[in-house]
Amino acid sequence: MTDAIADDAPYGEEHKQRAADWFAEVQKRLCARLEELEQSVQVHELNEAFEPQSFERTSWDRDGGGGGTMAVLRNGRVFEKAGVNISVVHGEFSEEFRDRVPGAREDPRFWAAGVSVVIHPRSPLVPISHMNTRMIVTTEGWFGGGGDLTPVYPDPEETERFHDAFRDACAPYGDDYYDRFSKWCDEYFYLPHRKETRGVGGIFYDNHATGDWETDFKFTQDVALAFVSVYPDIARDKMNLKWTPEQRLAQRVKRGRYVEFNLLYDRGTIFGLKTGGNTDAILMSLPPDVAWP
Amino acid sequence: MTDAIADDAPYGEEHKQRAADWFAEVQKRLCARLEELEQSVQVHELNEAFEPQSFERTSWDRDGGGGGTMAVLRNGRVFEKAGVNISVVHGEFSEEFRDRVPGAREDPRFWAAGVSVVIHPRSPLVPISHMNTRMIVTTEGWFGGGGDLTPVYPDPEETERFHDAFRDACAPYGDDYYDRFSKWCDEYFYLPHRKETRGVGGIFYDNHATGDWETDFKFTQDVALAFVSVYPDIARDKMNLKWTPEQRLAQRVKRGRYVEFNLLYDRGTIFGLKTGGNTDAILMSLPPDVAWP
Repeated sequence: MTDAIADDAPYGEEHKQRAADWFAEVQKRLCARLEELEQSVQVHELNEAFEPQSFERTSWDRDGGGGGTMAVLRNGRVFEKAGVNISVVHGEFSEEFRDRVPGAREDPRFWAAGVSVVIHPRSPLVPISHMNTRMIVTTEGWFGGGGDLTPVYPDPEETERFHDAFRDACAPYGDDYYDRFSKWCDEYFYLPHRKETRGVGGIFYDNHATGDWETDFKFTQDVALAFVSVYPDIARDKMNLKWTPEQRLAQRVKRGRYVEFNLLYDRGTIFGLKTGGNTDAILMSLPPDVAWP
Repeated sequence: MTDAIADDAPYGEEHKQRAADWFAEVQKRLCARLEELEQSVQVHELNEAFEPQSFERTSWDRDGGGGGTMAVLRNGRVFEKAGVNISVVHGEFSEEFRDRVPGAREDPRFWAAGVSVVIHPRSPLVPISHMNTRMIVTTEGWFGGGGDLTPVYPDPEETERFHDAFRDACAPYGDDYYDRFSKWCDEYFYLPHRKETRGVGGIFYDNHATGDWETDFKFTQDVALAFVSVYPDIARDKMNLKWTPEQRLAQRVKRGRYVEFNLLYDRGTIFGLKTGGNTDAILMSLPPDVAWP
């Protein structure tokens, strides 16, 4: 990173390094937990054609500064495609983005690091899920992130369990955090053209900077930890169930809604593609097998 | 349509009616030609599980004015999904669009009619194709449209044949039409994040109003006629060939690029979804079976 932007704490070099190290740690822990499920799922006639898989890691450099490591598990027994990507990038915003990003008008340089997760299970009974946490530095600095669940067949107990995990993660940091961030999630993951939510929610937060970097960082760590803990448990509960061809088709159609959301509305996707991000890493979120019948 | 906008010829009531009638005629002719192919394809082990299908028509009304008729052929022997949609709509542009559409700043009311076609063949050896022609009226009036071809396996002879059809359609109207409109097509159907063109081109034109409505209408008719003539011939030439599973996967991946283009970049799609168009009709363009491996 260049010297001019927020190198003094908070959001200085030491904090950037700690955030980047943490995102790598999240990648490591989550990949390990998902690989464990690949090994422990029961074999039945619907998944026996697929071997348990592990994550393959590919590092990439970004033109203009920084890079990342994609960890992708493909064609597994539980997970048809799961991506757990980390990146640490820096550069300059194009004119188009300078008015849209806090602190970028004064100086277009930015630094950004994060971990981004999208999981597409093979079984239509195991929910799709997404988690992202990130730290951004311009002339300002902040955290953002969240996690959300997209079941094909919503199950109230499962939904509650997922929300509880994030409610618990939010509780120590502010009485209103969970309410605000779960509402933000519902608003964000909405497809106006379908008049549908993408899934059953979770939390979403952005531009989060209370003035106390340590606490904001710890909150962001706890959000990721909540996901690393709850999602594999949810997947484990459903992964041994058998499904029908009708359920599989419903899943492929639901995945189509996921694609529509990501390409039409998701700011992270559109922002990444338009600022020279790594296309393969960004579009790792797209499902492996989709139907628009 | 209300009385205040361009009701005097050109782009008045009589011209609107003639344009709308013509788009319905295009739908009728193209559907008939595609249905003919469904009946005449040779049966082999890759298509024998599928019966020849015909188009099903569904009419819809638009909140705010007008409506359309979707003609969709699903799960056929030659065509996995083909949509030939017509619509005649009117309404008012939201504030967001008034500066983007010629003539809408002065008065936000619009009238628009068109025919829009997307064809997804079952065989990866038969090219995907798209055609659209439309007439738009605000305080100004114009035509737009074009046709383009997206083969999974480009074939120079086939590409030339497709381009020749549009070159011939353009020739009587202006020496530079084909060159300008084929270049416009290449520029329009480009995926910057993939550094790929969507297909092998064709023509694309918009805001077309020379001051001579009759001639501009006839040009737009000839563009549609070129497509109705050339695409079924191209499909017929390849529809009896057998394909491999690898070719099928390549097709499903190519269809993913098609989805990326339509949802990230296509002005018609985004415009339609954001102006209260019929979601099912607009997203009829999305392929039936897609892979992002």
